Amino acid sequence: MTSSADVTPELEDLYRGFERELLVPLWTEIGDLMPAHPRSRAVPHLWRWQRLRELAARAGELVPVGRGGERRAIALANPGLGGRPFATPTLWAAIQYLMPGEDAPEHRHTQHAFRFVVEGEGVWTVVDGDPIAMRRGDFLPQAGWNWHAHHNATAKPMAWIDGLDIPFQYVTDTQFFQQGRDRLSDAEHATPDRSRSERLWGHPGLRPVAASTGGPGTAGSPLFAYRWEHTDRALADQLAIEAEGFGGTVQPGHAAVRFTDPATGADVLPTIRAEMHRITRGTQTAPVRETGSSVYAVFDGSGTVTVGAATWSVTRGDLFVVPSWEPFSARSEAGATDSDSGALDLFRFSDSPVFEALGLARTEGTAR
Amino acid sequence: MTSSADVTPELEDLYRGFERELLVPLWTEIGDLMPAHPRSRAVPHLWRWQRLRELAARAGELVPVGRGGERRAIALANPGLGGRPFATPTLWAAIQYLMPGEDAPEHRHTQHAFRFVVEGEGVWTVVDGDPIAMRRGDFLPQAGWNWHAHHNATAKPMAWIDGLDIPFQYVTDTQFFQQGRDRLSDAEHATPDRSRSERLWGHPGLRPVAASTGGPGTAGSPLFAYRWEHTDRALADQLAIEAEGFGGTVQPGHAAVRFTDPATGADVLPTIRAEMHRITRGTQTAPVRETGSSVYAVFDGSGTVTVGAATWSVTRGDLFVVPSWEPFSARSEAGATDSDSGALDLFRFSDSPVFEALGLARTEGTAR
Amino acid sequence: MTSSADVTPELEDLYRGFERELLVPLWTEIGDLMPAHPRSRAVPHLWRWQRLRELAARAGELVPVGRGGERRAIALANPGLGGRPFATPTLWAAIQYLMPGEDAPEHRHTQHAFRFVVEGEGVWTVVDGDPIAMRRGDFLPQAGWNWHAHHNATAKPMAWIDGLDIPFQYVTDTQFFQQGRDRLSDAEHATPDRSRSERLWGHPGLRPVAASTGGPGTAGSPLFAYRWEHTDRALADQLAIEAEGFGGTVQPGHAAVRFTDPATGADVLPTIRAEMHRITRGTQTAPVRETGSSVYAVFDGSGTVTVGAATWSVTRGDLFVVPSWEPFSARSEAGATDSDSGALDLFRFSDSPVFEALGLARTEGTAR
Amino acid sequence: MTSSADVTPELEDLYRGFERELLVPLWTEIGDLMPAHPRSRAVPHLWRWQRLRELAARAGELVPVGRGGERRAIALANPGLGGRPFATPTLWAAIQYLMPGEDAPEHRHTQHAFRFVVEGEGVWTVVDGDPIAMRRGDFLPQAGWNWHAHHNATAKPMAWIDGLDIPFQYVTDTQFFQQGRDRLSDAEHATPDRSRSERLWGHPGLRPVAASTGGPGTAGSPLFAYRWEHTDRALADQLAIEAEGFGGTVQPGHAAVRFTDPATGADVLPTIRAEMHRITRGTQTAPVRETGSSVYAVFDGSGTVTVGAATWSVTRGDLFVVPSWEPFSARSEAGATDSDSGALDLFRFSDSPVFEALGLARTEGTAR
Repeated sequence: MTSSADVTPELEDLYRGFERELLVPLWTEIGDLMPAHPRSRAVPHLWRWQRLRELAARAGELVPVGRGGERRAIALANPGLGGRPFATPTLWAAIQYLMPGEDAPEHRHTQHAFRFVVEGEGVWTVVDGDPIAMRRGDFLPQAGWNWHAHHNATAKPMAWIDGLDIPFQYVTDTQFFQQGRDRLSDAEHATPDRSRSERLWGHPGLRPVAASTGGPGTAGSPLFAYRWEHTDRALADQLAIEAEGFGGTVQPGHAAVRFTDPATGADVLPTIRAEMHRITRGTQTAPVRETGSSVYAVFDGSGTVTVGAATWSVTRGDLFVVPSWEPFSARSEAGATDSDSGALDLFRFSDSPVFEALGLARTEGTAR
Repeated sequence: MTSSADVTPELEDLYRGFERELLVPLWTEIGDLMPAHPRSRAVPHLWRWQRLRELAARAGELVPVGRGGERRAIALANPGLGGRPFATPTLWAAIQYLMPGEDAPEHRHTQHAFRFVVEGEGVWTVVDGDPIAMRRGDFLPQAGWNWHAHHNATAKPMAWIDGLDIPFQYVTDTQFFQQGRDRLSDAEHATPDRSRSERLWGHPGLRPVAASTGGPGTAGSPLFAYRWEHTDRALADQLAIEAEGFGGTVQPGHAAVRFTDPATGADVLPTIRAEMHRITRGTQTAPVRETGSSVYAVFDGSGTVTVGAATWSVTRGDLFVVPSWEPFSARSEAGATDSDSGALDLFRFSDSPVFEALGLARTEGTAR
Repeated sequence: MTSSADVTPELEDLYRGFERELLVPLWTEIGDLMPAHPRSRAVPHLWRWQRLRELAARAGELVPVGRGGERRAIALANPGLGGRPFATPTLWAAIQYLMPGEDAPEHRHTQHAFRFVVEGEGVWTVVDGDPIAMRRGDFLPQAGWNWHAHHNATAKPMAWIDGLDIPFQYVTDTQFFQQGRDRLSDAEHATPDRSRSERLWGHPGLRPVAASTGGPGTAGSPLFAYRWEHTDRALADQLAIEAEGFGGTVQPGHAAVRFTDPATGADVLPTIRAEMHRITRGTQTAPVRETGSSVYAVFDGSGTVTVGAATWSVTRGDLFVVPSWEPFSARSEAGATDSDSGALDLFRFSDSPVFEALGLARTEGTAR
Repeated sequence: MTSSADVTPELEDLYRGFERELLVPLWTEIGDLMPAHPRSRAVPHLWRWQRLRELAARAGELVPVGRGGERRAIALANPGLGGRPFATPTLWAAIQYLMPGEDAPEHRHTQHAFRFVVEGEGVWTVVDGDPIAMRRGDFLPQAGWNWHAHHNATAKPMAWIDGLDIPFQYVTDTQFFQQGRDRLSDAEHATPDRSRSERLWGHPGLRPVAASTGGPGTAGSPLFAYRWEHTDRALADQLAIEAEGFGGTVQPGHAAVRFTDPATGADVLPTIRAEMHRITRGTQTAPVRETGSSVYAVFDGSGTVTVGAATWSVTRGDLFVVPSWEPFSARSEAGATDSDSGALDLFRFSDSPVFEALGLARTEGTAR
C-alpha cells in the first residue's frame, strides 16, 4: 500500500486535483474494493416474527392499501446498509399484511418476486388473472413482468413473507413498473382450491404440450404455487431414503429441496434461489459459506443458528440474514412450539442464480 | 437430369470405371438421396395388440429368459425396412413378456429405453438397484448406461411395451453394451410401492439439493416412473381448463402431456420424446406432419387413425407407425371397450429430440 | 443367446408366427444389434486421388452439368455399405468437377455441406448470392438451407472435395430440397478476392454488431470460407509454441485446428466436424478411437496411416475412411512429393457433433 | 401513494416502531425503489483525456507502484454515486500509468478486466505468464482469476484505460483477490510481437483442438489481445459492404464490431460487453436507450455526443458515461485532430452481459 508514503504537499495537491476532476486513486481504496474475500457491509441480523406480526397488524389498522403505495409491505432493513429497505445487498424481504376483504391493486414489474406463508390463509394472489390460494407452507413465485394482485376473501387478516430482488435491480438500474387495472373482475375474485397454473404445470415431470412458457421479460417458473404437502413429503422421503441406507440428503439428518422451474429445471426465478431445509432433532449442520447472500425464515420447529460471529435461538417465523461468505450452520433443538415434522424447517432464499449465471459462485463447506 | 443423356458406350465405360473404384455418381441417385421432402422407406403399419399378446405368451412357454438372449422381447419390423426389427428407421418397439417368478438378467447399454404398460402389473424393473413397480398406464424411462433388470414378483405373466433407440444407434454405430450381475440381491427383489427415484424426484417442481443427476453416459431423466394417476389427472385438468374458457390443450378436445426430465425440463430421454394424448369422444385432430418418425400405442378407448394413405380402426393396445413427414390424424369413436376417460388415449414416442438438437426438426399442421 | 435351445417344431412354428406378423425376436438378433462396442458395417478403405481425378475428368467430358442431376459429383461408396454412395454410415464424400465456364445450378437442401480444395482454383461458390473464391487449402462450409451454386470463371477445369451429411439425413428421413434460379445474375458471377461473408465474419474474435446469423434451418457458420493462409499459420504457430516449451499441440509433433462457427464457437456445421491436422516429419500419432466415423483427405506430404487392421502409404489427395471405434494412427514420412510444410497435413471430417449433442460420444486414446 | 394519509400521532408511533425494529415500509419508498423505468443515480458525465493524462503523469512522478497499492490507476467517480470510484453503478473505468522500466506486481482477482489503449505503446501485460504487447487501438481482455502483471519495457511512460466490473462485484459481495509473485521471470519480461494467446486463438474461426479454455473462475475469452489492425479492417469492411448495397452496418454510416470469446462466440467477458463503433463523417446516430450502463472512450476523430440532457463536443481520449435508460446518440464532425479513418471511432463497454444472462435486458431505438 502506498499509504506508507509520506503525504507530502505535492501529493496533497495531486489528491485535490483528483477530487476536482472527479477521480479516485485505486491505491488508497484497494483494501476496501478488492478484499481477499467478500466482506459484506451487510451484517448478520435477526428479526422476530412476533414483533413483525404486531407491527404489520398495527399497519393494517392505520395504513390503507391502494394505488400509489400499492402494497402494505414492511421490509427488513439490514443495519449495515444505511437504513435502506434491503435485507441484503441484493434481496428484499418483507412482511405483507392484508385485512379482511381487502384487495391490493394489480401491477407488474421486472422485479422477480415470491410469497411464502408462515402462518394463516385466506388470501388469493392473482397472477395473470389466475387466482392462487395461499396457505401455510406454500411457496408462490411470480416472475418479473407478470401482472398480479392480491385479495383477502375471508373475514380474517393474513400476513405472509414477500421476497424480491428489488435491491439488485435498484443498484443495477434495471427496474420497470406498470400499474394495472384498479379492480379485479369477478372471475378473478374466485377462490379455487387449485389454480390453472397448478393444473397445467403441477404434475411431476409432465409438461403440457400446448403451453408455452411466457414471452420476453417473463422468464421464470410457469408454476405459481408449490404446495406444502409436496414440499413436506419430499423432505420426509429424503430422510426415509437416508434411513434405508441410501443417500439423498445434504448430510445425515439434513434434507433439502430446491424450488425449480418445471419447464427448465433451473432455479424458480432468474435471480432468486428458494429452498426448504429440514434439520432433524439433534442434528448440527456443517458450516457453509457461499458468495452471495441469503435470507432464512424459520418455518417450523426451533433451534440455534450461527451466522459468522452471531448465534441466535430461533423459532417459528423468525427471519435472519446470512451475508456473503459468512459461515452459516444450524442446530435443531426442542423448543416451546410443536413442530409438524419434529424437526427444524428452514425456508431459505438467496441470490445464487445471479452468480451462477455469471460464473462468480463459490462455495466452501458442504456441497450443495 | 442427365438421365436424358444417351447412355453411350463411353458413358457405360465410365460407369464401369466408377464401379471398379467403389464410386457412385450423384446425378443418377439424387432423386432418391435428396428428395423435395422426406420420403421414408418405412411405411405406415398397424400391429394388433391381441395378436402380439398371443405370440408373446407362446414365447413365454417356449423360450427361456437368460444371459445371452437377455430379454424375451419381440420387436415390430416395419415392412419397408427389409425385415430388420426396426419399427421406424430410428426406433425400436417391442412387446416384452415375463413369466411368474422370472428374472431378466442385469445389463446396461448406451441405447436409451423406456417401458410403457398397456395392461397388467406385477413386474418390477430394477434400475441402478432401485426396484420400480410397473402398472397399467405407467411410463418408465431408463436412460442409456443405467444398469437394469426385471423381475416378476407375482404368480401371473406380464407383458409390456419396450421402446428404444436401437435402430438409431445401430445405423450410426454408437452402441456399447455390458452384462451385469446374473442375480439380483434380495434387497433388489423388494416390491415397494414407490421407488427411491420417485421419492427423490417425483415431487412437482422440487429438486433434491443433494442429488446429482448422473455422470457421463447417463443423461436422461433421474425419475424412473411417471405414474398413470399423474398423467391421467394432467390430461383431465387440461380439458377442464379448456372447458372453463382458457387454453391449455393442443386443440379443442385434444389434450397432451410430454414426459420430461425434471432436472432439465427437456425430453425424458436424449433421443426419444414420449407423450400421452387424449382425444375426447367425437374429436377429429388436425393432420400434422413432422420430420422424424413416431410409434403410437392405443392406451385406452377406440377410434380411427389416419397415417398418410392408411386408415385403421384401433382399440386398446394396438400399435402403429407414423413415418417421417406422413400426415397423421386421429378421431375418437365409441368402441367395444370401456374407456376410463371416455376418450381415445394415445401414447406416442418419437425421435424428435435428435432432430431438435441438430436443428433439423420441421412441423406442418397443428403447432406442438 | 437362447440359440442353445433346440429349435423344436413348436419353436419353428412360433418363429413363423413372428414372420407372418412382421415381428422379430430380440434374442436371435441381440449380438448384432447390441454389441459390446460399435462394430461398423462400414470398413476401412482408401481411394487414390489420381484415379478419382482421372474419372472425374472423364465425366467432365461425357456428362453435362445441369438441372436434374444438379452436380457433377462422384461419391465414395464404402464397400461395407451395400453399394450405396455412403463413405460412412453418416457421411458423404465426393469429388466434384466443373469445366471451364460451367455453372452448377442454384439449389438448397437441409443437408449440411462443405467444399475442401486439394488442388487448383478458379471456381467461385455462390452462397446466398455471395461469390466465394475456392483455392488450394481452403475450407468452405455451407450450412443447410443456404442457396448455393458454383461457377468456373476460368479456362481450366477444377476439382474439389464435397463433404455432406447426406447418409445421415437419408437414414433418418429429414431431408428437404429446393431448386433455385437456373442462372446466376451478373453480380453473382463476380470474382472477388474476398467474399462478403469473410469481410463480415472473418476477423478474429470480432462479431458484427448488426449481423444476425441466419434464421430457422440455417444454423451453422456464417463464415463461408476458412482460408489456407490462416489454417497454415495456426498450425505453424502451435508447433512453434510447443518448440518454445509450452503446450498447444495435441501431442508432440501433432498440431490440429478445428473449423468453428465464429458466432458460437461450436462446430462449423451442426452435424459435421472439420479439422486440419499437421504431423511433423517422423512423428507417429497415438492410436485413437471414437464413436462415429471420419473421412480423411491427405492435403500435403506423405506418410503411413493405420485404420484398424489396414495400413496404407498415402500421398496428396488420397481419401480414406475411419469407421466408428476403429483405432486410427498416422506417421509422417518423406515421400515423392514436396510438402509445403515439411509435414503430413491431414484434413478430417466426422459426424462427432451429432453424438456430442446427444451425449453419445466416447473417445479412447489421445484426448481431443 | 399513501402519503395522502394524514400523519397522525398513531402513524408517527408506528413509523418509530418500524425504525426501532429495523423495518422500512414499502409505501413511502416505492417511487424510488420501483420507478416506471430505470432512473439512475449515476449521471451523464464527461472526463477530458488531456486532464486525465496530466494527473496520471503527475502521479507517475509522486506515487510509486508496488505491492499493496498494486496499480497506479486513477478511476472515474461518477458525480451521482457519492464519491465512490464508480464510473457507473457496475463499471470501473480508470487511467493507468506506468513509468519507464516499471513493473506492476502480479495478482489475480475475480473481477473481470480489460485494457484499452488510446495512445502510446511500450507496456507488456503478462497474463498467466504470457507477455502481451499493448499498442494504440488494442483491446486486451483478461477474465477474472487469471494471474497478471504489467511491465514497461521502454524508456517512455505509457498510459491506458482499464475497465473492470469492480462496482458490480463490490455491491454484490463476490470479489476474491490474491497476490502473486513479486517479480516476473526473465521469460515473462520478454517483448514478443505476438503473444502465445494470439498464436493459439487469434486465427479467424479456428480453434486449437488441444487447448482447453480455462477452469473454474476463468471463464471469458482465451484470446488476450484484439489488435487494432483487425478491428479497423472489420469496420472498414462493413462500411464497404454497405456502400456496395448490402447490409452489414448498424445503420447507414454506422459500423460496429463486438469483441467476443472465440471459444463461445459470447461476450468477451462474462460481465462486460466491449465494442468499437465507427461513425462516418456527417452521420448522426439514432438515439438508443438500454437497461444497464456504458462507458465510452473516443478513440479517434471528433464529434458531438448526446447523453440524456447533456451534449458535449468530444475528441480523442475523452471518456463519458451513459447511465441506464438514458438516450444516447452521436454525430461525427470535422475536428482539430486528424482521424485515421476519417470518422468518429468510439470504444464502448457496458454491463449488458449481466442483464442478458438474467433476462433483464431491454433496448429501445436502433436494434443492436
